[in-house]
Amino acid sequence: MRDNRTVTTSLDPDIAGRLKRTADGLVPAVVQQHDTGEVLMLGWMDDEALNRTLTTGRATYWSRSRQEYWIKGETSGHVQWVKEVRLDCDGDTLLVKVDQEGVACHTGDRTCFDADLLPAPRHA
Amino acid sequence: MRDNRTVTTSLDPDIAGRLKRTADGLVPAVVQQHDTGEVLMLGWMDDEALNRTLTTGRATYWSRSRQEYWIKGETSGHVQWVKEVRLDCDGDTLLVKVDQEGVACHTGDRTCFDADLLPAPRHA
Repeated sequence: MRDNRTVTTSLDPDIAGRLKRTADGLVPAVVQQHDTGEVLMLGWMDDEALNRTLTTGRATYWSRSRQEYWIKGETSGHVQWVKEVRLDCDGDTLLVKVDQEGVACHTGDRTCFDADLLPAPRHA
Repeated sequence: MRDNRTVTTSLDPDIAGRLKRTADGLVPAVVQQHDTGEVLMLGWMDDEALNRTLTTGRATYWSRSRQEYWIKGETSGHVQWVKEVRLDCDGDTLLVKVDQEGVACHTGDRTCFDADLLPAPRHA
């Protein structure tokens, strides 16, 4: 929860006004490889993480577990270069199209969805 | 918030045990067109919505605004036939690959991300 933090952000007020945030001030960001269409991961952004993503061109998230900003690849080298950022029809989800260097997942998999396929009926 | 509801679910306990839910018992579900890779929308599932999705093969969500289960396409005809459901490395996000009949967005757009491109630098 971020209630005790106050962060100054210079996110464009027009964009900030369109965002619908969770109770802890965050918006889920779906991250997609821009050319292959792979869904790489889901991250969370507050206004300032979105501002940094839009202005620096490097995908930046709010880490809910560490309670800090997290520039993807800063320690791993697995940088996400931002190609495009879109807001959905309800203003409550972001789609971030990136060029992923190396792998997206901390497990070493290319995407965070590679390992766990659930049993489901398949419609032909 | 779903605190006042009690829903009986027959979701596989092995799957239920791997899910990490938000405070209101939900998991975000990224919905992707299985063949083109388009990210169509983001929905929310509780255990029973996931159970229905896995067992009926029709994508079913928990509507946070209406506070009810929502079988995608039930009124619009824009059904999502489930091809594959994956859980991410942290157990806190689902990826649902579907075959979308018609359009995914209530605005009439193909995806919920078609309309609002945010200004961002583009890395070549």
